[in-house]
Amino acid sequence: MIPNFADRFDGISGSAIREIFKLIARPGVISFAGGNPSPKALPDDLVGEIAAKVIKEDGKRILQYGATEGYPPFLESLSNYLKNKHAFDLSNNLVLPTTGSTQGMDLLCKALINPGDVIITENPTFLGNMQAMRLYQAKLVGVDCDNDGIIIDELEAAIKKYKPKMLYIIPTFQNPGGTTLSLERRKKIVALAEEYGFIVAEDDPYGDLRFSGESLPTIKSFDKTGNVVYLGSFSKIISPGMRVGYMVGENTIIRKCTIGKQSSDLHTANLTQAIVDKFLRENLLDDLIEKIKEDYSIKMQTMLDALKDFPEGTKYTKPEGGMFIFVKLPQGLNATELLNTAVSNNVAYVPGTHFYTDGGRENTLRLNFTNSDIDTIKTGMAKIAEIFKDNNGGK
Amino acid sequence: MIPNFADRFDGISGSAIREIFKLIARPGVISFAGGNPSPKALPDDLVGEIAAKVIKEDGKRILQYGATEGYPPFLESLSNYLKNKHAFDLSNNLVLPTTGSTQGMDLLCKALINPGDVIITENPTFLGNMQAMRLYQAKLVGVDCDNDGIIIDELEAAIKKYKPKMLYIIPTFQNPGGTTLSLERRKKIVALAEEYGFIVAEDDPYGDLRFSGESLPTIKSFDKTGNVVYLGSFSKIISPGMRVGYMVGENTIIRKCTIGKQSSDLHTANLTQAIVDKFLRENLLDDLIEKIKEDYSIKMQTMLDALKDFPEGTKYTKPEGGMFIFVKLPQGLNATELLNTAVSNNVAYVPGTHFYTDGGRENTLRLNFTNSDIDTIKTGMAKIAEIFKDNNGGK
Repeated sequence: MIPNFADRFDGISGSAIREIFKLIARPGVISFAGGNPSPKALPDDLVGEIAAKVIKEDGKRILQYGATEGYPPFLESLSNYLKNKHAFDLSNNLVLPTTGSTQGMDLLCKALINPGDVIITENPTFLGNMQAMRLYQAKLVGVDCDNDGIIIDELEAAIKKYKPKMLYIIPTFQNPGGTTLSLERRKKIVALAEEYGFIVAEDDPYGDLRFSGESLPTIKSFDKTGNVVYLGSFSKIISPGMRVGYMVGENTIIRKCTIGKQSSDLHTANLTQAIVDKFLRENLLDDLIEKIKEDYSIKMQTMLDALKDFPEGTKYTKPEGGMFIFVKLPQGLNATELLNTAVSNNVAYVPGTHFYTDGGRENTLRLNFTNSDIDTIKTGMAKIAEIFKDNNGGK
Repeated sequence: MIPNFADRFDGISGSAIREIFKLIARPGVISFAGGNPSPKALPDDLVGEIAAKVIKEDGKRILQYGATEGYPPFLESLSNYLKNKHAFDLSNNLVLPTTGSTQGMDLLCKALINPGDVIITENPTFLGNMQAMRLYQAKLVGVDCDNDGIIIDELEAAIKKYKPKMLYIIPTFQNPGGTTLSLERRKKIVALAEEYGFIVAEDDPYGDLRFSGESLPTIKSFDKTGNVVYLGSFSKIISPGMRVGYMVGENTIIRKCTIGKQSSDLHTANLTQAIVDKFLRENLLDDLIEKIKEDYSIKMQTMLDALKDFPEGTKYTKPEGGMFIFVKLPQGLNATELLNTAVSNNVAYVPGTHFYTDGGRENTLRLNFTNSDIDTIKTGMAKIAEIFKDNNGGK
């Protein structure tokens, strides 16, 4: 029997990125499509040692059922880490460990979103979370961005018009844009949230990966009224495969998310929480992050250099960190159609259209620079440049 | 700002069991309330060794993003295990690793349930999953059980009356009842599902814990039409804290659940999947299960013996395995009210009312026998018996 599936799946066909992953999984394909950390960045030896150690120290508790609220030592070290790092006020806010920040976004939608509620997003935005929001039958309204992030005038106009329940935003090294929201705009968003009464979901998986320029405070750090929920992750600085993220928000909201989490997965695996706990307690993160940044910044520069050979009139972001560069080809070049040609030539990217709430923009694409080595980036970028030029009259 | 929460939370206040857990968390309380494995049953030394080993062997892949469909070696070993153990037909069914079987139930509801859809359950049933179903705004209809499980005549009447989308059932060593669905009823349920076109969610976390009597085939093993989705777990035989479960169902249904999982947590932690994979590949489960059963069967017998001292007219189930005994006190004794007295006397259970879709039955309670040692069971049961007798005129 093939049953009638729930209405929430109407128009949902699975994440385009993950389908592309399968397409390019065969050996020999150079992929700029994923959002994977460099294999070199994954501290496997260290995690192996730590895993054995935490089970030796606290194995019975780690293997037993845990609290939905989190593995107690991790909840403590994480809270301290967040107070020091972001100056979050944890007297009016709670921290909830989640199974990746993917789950944080899911739980926030579960807590807040009724079918038809409006969520405003950057346009383009992270397609994984677009699917999450759509599975809650939210109506997504995209607001355009420039080099300083979401454009505030357009955001305010959209807020007035659509009365959103939530703004979903990736302020630092945005996915897919690579851009960073300016300080002034961060403050303005907090003021708008307070004035118009909506929740800001601040998704910040890349904030630690800054190669140049000055760090900016989180949007959450300006929040005095509990309108901002911060979504964090250790996926980009320790390991995505361990699925450890967290959310920080006003007590009532996080309690609702905790009830939601009881029936989502009861709790995040104690073992992976305990491993991240040790990274925090033993101050292992700074060294890791320094090494990752050194590696990634050279890779990004290599890719930026290679972009100079793309067709005349190509524009692209020049990020100060993160994992992605977003490219606009000259009008008429169709990056969605040309992906097939690229894959036939053993190189891949994600067409930009998938990141827009309303599709279109077939001349855009997202490039990831973290998961390939320098020579591979040069080879792959040369291939893509050639394909695009061939389809642009050789220019 | 305290936002308006989503309608799905109307009437949801968090799992009663988990609130009771907090109440009794202080040291010195004897708890028959949880559903925790015995600490002795948790193979911490083995898991420590295996964790180090799998990271040594495949650390880069384990730490990297994984496929939503599962860690490939685990998907393979799990499929072989299920073919051998339950003779599942995996040409028309897919296996999906989940973050505990809790997530399996959540994903199945996500795939199938629109607000107002009817789910039939055993009455009483597992309250954690009652909350899961209610968060999808399902209407729950409970059908009474006897010593052979759900009563088929009443089930068929409810099916005709309510036209359910799903039947949720725990056929073996039911939670909270401890009873096991007879072979004849298993076959009949498959026939009813086919005739009336609903999905059966077969939740089987306790099936391996049989202390006496003969093993029965799963409901799923009789399913030729794809109406049955099987939810399995390693929580009760390896570790609940690792959060590794799985679901087995008709291809189309599992693909829909996989899309749902993309935005629930992207994938289950590779590390915990890899650890369970080794337990399967190295045939470590049988020994573990034998030891657990030996321990639990003595504990259950101790608890059953102690129940003879409960008030006159007390009835209780006599399970052949699992983790729970369900108790009906004489009418007039209120187990919900008396929990406070019990906790004041440092002993706890779960009032049975929380397991009924329509509440009531205040004279019932659930007792867990796995998470206390023999002497503690004797001491705690004597205390409860005394409290109940004191409130029953000394009888």
